[in-house]
Amino acid sequence: MADTIFQKILSGAIPCHQIYRDEQVLAFLDINPLCPGHTLVIPVEPAETLDQLSDEAAAAIGRVLPRLARAVMKATGAKDYNVLQNNGTAAHQAVFHVHFHIIPKYEDGRGLGIGWKTQGTLEGTEGAGLVKRIVEAL
Amino acid sequence: MADTIFQKILSGAIPCHQIYRDEQVLAFLDINPLCPGHTLVIPVEPAETLDQLSDEAAAAIGRVLPRLARAVMKATGAKDYNVLQNNGTAAHQAVFHVHFHIIPKYEDGRGLGIGWKTQGTLEGTEGAGLVKRIVEAL
Repeated sequence: MADTIFQKILSGAIPCHQIYRDEQVLAFLDINPLCPGHTLVIPVEPAETLDQLSDEAAAAIGRVLPRLARAVMKATGAKDYNVLQNNGTAAHQAVFHVHFHIIPKYEDGRGLGIGWKTQGTLEGTEGAGLVKRIVEAL
Repeated sequence: MADTIFQKILSGAIPCHQIYRDEQVLAFLDINPLCPGHTLVIPVEPAETLDQLSDEAAAAIGRVLPRLARAVMKATGAKDYNVLQNNGTAAHQAVFHVHFHIIPKYEDGRGLGIGWKTQGTLEGTEGAGLVKRIVEAL
């Protein structure tokens, strides 16, 4: 795994606007925010994508997300927000160290833009086949 | 909290394409997928938004996300994916029971559309003020 900017932030080589840190998790403000309060939550454990992260590190991030979200919303006054975690270049990942974005969504539209184009309703047979393949892969 | 379709799925009143279930978490295929493999991961604990969810329930979801992501990617053949969790109508939440989307991103573009318009680089003074307010709210 390449040495990313987030690993340099974790080591202290590069400063950050730190919000929270424990043994497994660091949270800080995104330096190129979509809007005020845009926060990044990363594991101390190095992993490029979420599927490569340990269960323990992923649980540690999950555990602090509600608390961090409450604090970001209280501090910014935003009521709505998105949590986004991207894996792979096609999925908009730019830094290859797992990170969760907490992005307030303001009434004037600032925040994450979401394109939501459904493929239509899932057919019963298609769903059954997919479930079988996913469960076999678990 | 209103009785949502996800609570009816949890109780068994409405069927789902179930992928995974433990004491705290249920995962199933989205019935209106953006693309094949679009999966929802929800807590058994009722909470409208992530900030209202208990730390324990949020940790339980975090813990299974890597495993579920690996299985969905293996079963679909997709390499990239997004994890998205929406809170509030302005942030594209439609069902008011916490849910994480796992959405494969295919090479032909199927999957989540992301609009990413930054406000520019975070200024030092702005960042310091925000950090102070968020930390005070933690």
